[in-house]
Order: sequence, then C-alpha cells, then structure tokens
Amino acid sequence: MNIEERKTAPIGVFDSGVGGLTVAREIARQLPDENIIYFGDTARVPYGSKSQNTIIRFSEQIIRFLRTKQVKAIVIACNTASALALDAVRDEFDIPILGVVIPGARAAVEATRNKKIGVAGTDATVQSGMYTKVIHAMAPDVTVIEKACPLFVPLVEEGFKEHIVTQEVIEYYLESMRSTDIDAMILGCTHYPLLRSKIRDYMGDKIQIVNPAYETAMDLKKLLHEMDMANDGSDARHSRYSFYVSDAAEKFRKFANTVMPFDVPTTNVVNIEEY
Amino acid sequence: MNIEERKTAPIGVFDSGVGGLTVAREIARQLPDENIIYFGDTARVPYGSKSQNTIIRFSEQIIRFLRTKQVKAIVIACNTASALALDAVRDEFDIPILGVVIPGARAAVEATRNKKIGVAGTDATVQSGMYTKVIHAMAPDVTVIEKACPLFVPLVEEGFKEHIVTQEVIEYYLESMRSTDIDAMILGCTHYPLLRSKIRDYMGDKIQIVNPAYETAMDLKKLLHEMDMANDGSDARHSRYSFYVSDAAEKFRKFANTVMPFDVPTTNVVNIEEY
Repeated sequence: MNIEERKTAPIGVFDSGVGGLTVAREIARQLPDENIIYFGDTARVPYGSKSQNTIIRFSEQIIRFLRTKQVKAIVIACNTASALALDAVRDEFDIPILGVVIPGARAAVEATRNKKIGVAGTDATVQSGMYTKVIHAMAPDVTVIEKACPLFVPLVEEGFKEHIVTQEVIEYYLESMRSTDIDAMILGCTHYPLLRSKIRDYMGDKIQIVNPAYETAMDLKKLLHEMDMANDGSDARHSRYSFYVSDAAEKFRKFANTVMPFDVPTTNVVNIEEY
Repeated sequence: MNIEERKTAPIGVFDSGVGGLTVAREIARQLPDENIIYFGDTARVPYGSKSQNTIIRFSEQIIRFLRTKQVKAIVIACNTASALALDAVRDEFDIPILGVVIPGARAAVEATRNKKIGVAGTDATVQSGMYTKVIHAMAPDVTVIEKACPLFVPLVEEGFKEHIVTQEVIEYYLESMRSTDIDAMILGCTHYPLLRSKIRDYMGDKIQIVNPAYETAMDLKKLLHEMDMANDGSDARHSRYSFYVSDAAEKFRKFANTVMPFDVPTTNVVNIEEY
C-alpha cells in the first residue's frame, strides 16, 4: 500500500455481535472521513461466557478476515475480546490494533476524584481482572471494584430494557457496588450503554458513568494522525460503511438501523471459521 | 464394524451446551448398558438465536467429530438443532440420527385430551414452526400454540432459578398460553426442564408438562433393538460415558456433576471448527 492508499484504507471494527455498533457509531461521529468495515460475530455470540483460548482464536480469525479488506488499523470494540485477546493478537499481527479497555480505564482514572472506580462487565472480562490491571498500571493507588453482570446482555438483546425485571436485575447486580463510595463507573461491555439511563438512575448522580467508546475513538484519531494514516475525505464514496456478520444478517441489519445514525445497507454473511 | 463391534459402539449425543445432559441422563437411565459420547458446543452456545444455515453447519461438524469416535447412532439432544438441522443431516449421513422434536410431539399428542398443545422453545425453534408441523402430521386436528421464551436459558445458566425475576419472566412469557385451555405443554428446549417445577406451579395442574427426553430415550431403545444394535453390557467398562466440549471444559464438568447421577470424569476440549 502506498501512502495515499493507506490513508483511504478502512478501519476494521469488530465485536461479538451488535454491541460494538456503539463504538462504530462513536468512530463515525468523531472521524467522519474514515471508512469503516464492521464485523459482528453473530454466529458465536456471546463471548462473555467463553474461555480465553477460544476468544483469542475467534479474534485471530476475524482479524485475518478484516485484513483481506485491506484495513489500515483495527479496533476491538468488544470489552471481552479487548481484555482477553488484545495482547495475543498485537504480538501476532503487524497492524495497529486498539482495544476499548485501556481508553475506558484512562477515562475513569481521569474522572475519579476519590480514587475509587467501579467496573461492570461480562464474566470473562471481570474474571480476567484486566480493567484492574490496566487501572493500577496508570494509577496504583486507585481502588477498583469489578462486578460481572451476565444477564444485562440477554436482557438488552431480548428487548426487556423497559421491563421491570431489568430494573430488578440492575439492583441485584449493582447493589453492592452502590453501597461503596465509588465516584466513577465503567460500562465495561458494549451492550451496557444501552442501559445507561437506568444504571445512572440507580447508581445516583454522584457517580460519573464512563463509556469507553468515546475515549476509544479519541485514541484512534490520535493514532491515525501520529502514523500519518488519517483520511482527509477526498476519496468521495457513496457509503463509508460496510457491515459483515457470521450469521443472521437481516436481524443484524434491523438492530443496526436502530443504533446507527444513518441507513445501514445490506449486511454480508461471512463463514468466519474459514479464516 | 462387525455386529459385535456395532453393539458395543457408543451412542453419540450432542447439544449446544449443557442442556442436553438432561437427555443423556435419561438415556443412561433407560439404557444403562450403552456407552455414550456426549458433545456440548460450549464455544458457540446458544443456538436458539441463530439461523438455520449456521445450525446445520454446526451440526454437520459435530456429527463428523462423533463419527471419528465410531458411534453407532446419534441423538440430537438440542431442540433447536432437532427442529432446524435433523432433515438436512439425515440426508447427508448414513447413520441413524434421532432428534427430540418427534418424540416430544408424539408424547404431547398422546397426553392431550382436548387436542390443544402448548410449546415453549427458543426463538429459532418457534420460528421454524417444526413442533406444529410434526404434531399436525400426527394429528391434523390438534391446535398448537408456540411461544418463544429466549430468556429462560440465560436465567438458568446464570443461576437465577430461585430469583424473583425468573418467576416474573415465566409469567411474562407464559401468561398468554395460560389464558388458553391447552391441557399439554412441551418443554421444547433442554434447559426448560430445569425450570419445570416453577413452570408447572404457574401453569397449574390441569396441564400435563411433557419433557421430550423421556420419549427420545424410548425411541432410541426401540431403534437399537430393531436394528440389532443394542449393547448387552458384556463389554465391561470402567466408565460408559465420555464428555467433549468445544470450550470451557472445567465449567462444563462442574455443571454436569450437578445434573448427572454419577461422577463426571475429565471433560475433553475439541476444536470443533476443524471437523
């Protein structure tokens, strides 16, 4: 790739399913001249209950697929894959790869006044302890309280957002965290921002809610400029965004249309196990 | 395989994860002399929200794996895979393959007095309409009411069985079915028998609850005798049961030990995508 080709090459963004669209949306907002190839692993969703070896293998396959689309950088929009696979795939592939954990941790460290941060995430993310490790590398004196909230994802996916049981499950998972004096809380799973207002109402307005998507898009912007890879937008395109999934393209497209601020075109199905 | 080898060959049983253990348990109970190879696709669980093409591809891979273990017959313990993949894999493989839908449908047709049957299942199972098709092929005058209950699986898996939200979700999904006058109800997903007492309490004792596992084991017994493939138990074995999964073997083993009436030995991990 020459310099011009590199600038106009797309950003690869991937997630276990639809959740990472909240990250893609933020990248599209902050970097409107960039082209994005999104991949959602809908055939193997969710990742949050699976093992590190499996999540690394799935991430490797997806990165190999995204490379066939000549991406110039990759964003792992999934917190679980960021926590469990980022180090492994960074060692393996010679392309810039960003996760959401480091940007999310940094935002929380900047937000906390009393040095007490809460993290809500999937089983796999919380068991990895990655948020705590990354926060302690930035600020060793911060106390981190992590809590796995595995039912949040199915509640969002099954449309229970407004049902009373979602409120009860939020209370069940977050009661112990609310009884501490944390003043910043990371939504450490891409689905959780979709419950943001309910979580905020329950946790109270003394706690600053951190969504890693914003900081991740900021980090990506910085990286592209530093590496002289930013797209100046001169490559006029009909659409800057392409969507791929490993299963159930039409269901994905419908959901994507509720999340993205533009009309989501045809979604393509990829047999990801072949990569 | 000669006749003697065929008799002592194992039965392959597979499911998207742990749910099919309720079927394996019933086979072990009714056919104590048979050897069983169980495979749980824990890397790609759940199947209930995925498309038919994907479920067929996953089922084909698992059957190819089970054949490397010289199985003499295969039971698809997963309702979703039985509903969406049985016809395809039966055409493709020259080995007896049983699903749980036909036995479950037959049991319900035998149980109903007023010819009104309810079916609770996953999204994929209900959308396939397979229970209705199979019941109508047996008894065209039966009314079938199907209802997808997608949150039941994560509620069981996340240990919410005794929590108030499980009761509320049961009411949410089954209220419309309870207001009809069905007198038989199929638990059309292998996880649902784990909520059986709660579902029964809510639905009332006028409704007969059908768990397809029992009838499936009966059908298997009949098939093995008809084809002269039943094991007479003369092959003394240390253990008749082996367990394979595509991910998270230790978590599976712990769950299996709560379901099976014997100590579950080491569980082996298989990279199922290679089959």
